[in-house]
Amino acid sequence: MSLLDRIAACRAWQPEAYRPFVIGGEAIGYIRHDFAARLRDFPRVFEVNDRAVLLDAKLGDFATRSAAIAEVLAVLRDEGEISGWRDEAYPVVQSWGEAPRLEMERAAVPKFGVRGFGVHMNGYIRRTEGIEMWVGRRAKTKPTGPGKLDQLVAGGQPIGIGIRENMIKECQEEAGIPPALAQRVTAVGAVSYRCERPEGLRDDVLYCFDLELPEDFTPQNTDGEVEAFYLWSLDRVIEVLSTGEDFKFNCALVAIDFLLRRGFIEPDWRDYTALMHGLRLPQ
Amino acid sequence: MSLLDRIAACRAWQPEAYRPFVIGGEAIGYIRHDFAARLRDFPRVFEVNDRAVLLDAKLGDFATRSAAIAEVLAVLRDEGEISGWRDEAYPVVQSWGEAPRLEMERAAVPKFGVRGFGVHMNGYIRRTEGIEMWVGRRAKTKPTGPGKLDQLVAGGQPIGIGIRENMIKECQEEAGIPPALAQRVTAVGAVSYRCERPEGLRDDVLYCFDLELPEDFTPQNTDGEVEAFYLWSLDRVIEVLSTGEDFKFNCALVAIDFLLRRGFIEPDWRDYTALMHGLRLPQ
Repeated sequence: MSLLDRIAACRAWQPEAYRPFVIGGEAIGYIRHDFAARLRDFPRVFEVNDRAVLLDAKLGDFATRSAAIAEVLAVLRDEGEISGWRDEAYPVVQSWGEAPRLEMERAAVPKFGVRGFGVHMNGYIRRTEGIEMWVGRRAKTKPTGPGKLDQLVAGGQPIGIGIRENMIKECQEEAGIPPALAQRVTAVGAVSYRCERPEGLRDDVLYCFDLELPEDFTPQNTDGEVEAFYLWSLDRVIEVLSTGEDFKFNCALVAIDFLLRRGFIEPDWRDYTALMHGLRLPQ
Repeated sequence: MSLLDRIAACRAWQPEAYRPFVIGGEAIGYIRHDFAARLRDFPRVFEVNDRAVLLDAKLGDFATRSAAIAEVLAVLRDEGEISGWRDEAYPVVQSWGEAPRLEMERAAVPKFGVRGFGVHMNGYIRRTEGIEMWVGRRAKTKPTGPGKLDQLVAGGQPIGIGIRENMIKECQEEAGIPPALAQRVTAVGAVSYRCERPEGLRDDVLYCFDLELPEDFTPQNTDGEVEAFYLWSLDRVIEVLSTGEDFKFNCALVAIDFLLRRGFIEPDWRDYTALMHGLRLPQ
């Protein structure tokens, strides 16, 4: 068991189990063959052949595409094919900031293997003995990673809100960090990965932020999505990361990135270069 | 002109102009076809065919390989085929920390297109108005990037010295930073790239460090490799990076990495994700 196992878990997928999802001639996602077969039931929306799933070319703009997909997804949700419904629209893009091809309910994003985006924040305090990190335990009711360890604050990045704005909003909801304090978050980069998960293919970019908190600050969850918060030494963080899958798969990457950026893992360490390069996929 | 141009410059090479350099069945470098032809003059060391250059299989261990290559390189240096001789041995490895296949004079590394390693340090001060960064101008006598802008401290990573140890040693030589202060450097990650340069194919990993300096510290070059030091606002750094090639090609990556890690460039910025992913190549 090592940190490299956490990276490997975020890269494990079988391309041969998928076919491209194509919009306007552009491959923008990956759909499992069994789900592709299911989409044959919606011939006015999808053209399904052995090599790809194409969004019908008659659906030519954002609004008509989004409405057509929403109708299909409602049926699939009612049949239990899509679970963990969030009522949160994600833009379908290759890169954040592009004109979205359509919008799609968050829970469906991994079923179509389109790129998802999120914001994760490392909350920490600085003591004489060193940095300590706040770690959250996800509620057992969460549709993904129930009961797993997480950053102090993390959330999906829906359509129609800026990344920084969303990060600050999540700070309030997930940890009760007031905006005046949350505004001090520092953007520190991003991690990315593509892997098979129970919910489908996760092909995500997570924008990472750090926030140094006052020693007397105690996080308070306000949205029921966090069961508990712990304040851990970085030694403890690295030990938990190294020895098992207690951290949610993608939160492990964000935590490793923090350890690398803060010099807690040094380049003379054997796996350093592999870890550095494992945190991001070519985009 | 934009920061993305700096990334593109670090990825520009023509694979079709090269053939693999193979040691013990393992492709460990890329040699230009014209240089491969030149290596036919050394048939006891290299087997040159149309598809690859192989180190002779009889050269079975580190010492005999290194000695054989050294003999060839001395001839090529005397004939002017290899310039910028450094008298500094680099290990030939794929990843830092592996057992080296041989050691090789630094100036020859790009001719064989094997991976090189370096240490770069961002020196900065923190003022009420924000962070200011020390920038060095390379001496006009440097074999690579003469007169170009550089980090406060940067150097190659030779064989036989740890990465952190080398970083601290370079701090003294390049900027007169005493060990007691240099020991405070924080490892913050790495950048990597592969591109054609006048000296050959650069396929490098640069280990990056940050050092916060006291406001009253003034760098002093002791090895003649730096012509001048400037203390610049990050606004100025980004302007110079964005508008031309004043920074040495690879130092630009290290500076962009600093701007991203410190939140000076934020994820709502259009090119953010491309920049983040452009700083490192798959290894």
